[in-house]
Amino acid sequence: MRADAERLAGVLKAIADPARLRLLSLIQSAPEGEASVSDLTAPLGLSQPTVSHHLRILTEAGLLEREKRGVWAYYRLVPSTIAAIADLLTPPRKRAAKRAR
Amino acid sequence: MRADAERLAGVLKAIADPARLRLLSLIQSAPEGEASVSDLTAPLGLSQPTVSHHLRILTEAGLLEREKRGVWAYYRLVPSTIAAIADLLTPPRKRAAKRAR
Repeated sequence: MRADAERLAGVLKAIADPARLRLLSLIQSAPEGEASVSDLTAPLGLSQPTVSHHLRILTEAGLLEREKRGVWAYYRLVPSTIAAIADLLTPPRKRAAKRAR
Repeated sequence: MRADAERLAGVLKAIADPARLRLLSLIQSAPEGEASVSDLTAPLGLSQPTVSHHLRILTEAGLLEREKRGVWAYYRLVPSTIAAIADLLTPPRKRAAKRAR
């Protein structure tokens, strides 16, 4: 439990930033659930290097995966990391009910 | 969206700490879903002032509510705050399916 908590605290620290929360939200709402840096600069109102910096932190935390196609890299959410956090926040009874479904 | 992100980042910063994650997990697993400081010191291996400090941060972030009964204060999770975070982490399609159920 202590090791899990340490690992998860690191992931949550990566999310606990307004720009990175907005990035995650934009990516998960994007067509096909993926976006490139150039898709994200305008809606966030941030420069390309700043967006790239935030994307790197989210990728290193295991929240995003990066796929290079041609000259662009595309980012999408990693469902298992997101599920682990959502699971942590679901009370044990609800979690058991979900599994039984 | 920017104001939501600011507010939520604050809540996530409160959670993004190993001791506080373990506190939340212990409280949501406790009988009746509530615990007092004295219930939490032994399982966490932390002193009462340290546990109180973490409980205060979680309460100020809106993650825990505190009820005084007799000499003890009891803490429980605030479902709406937890739901808001879980919702953020659920892709829009799944969220729509959930609402339709």
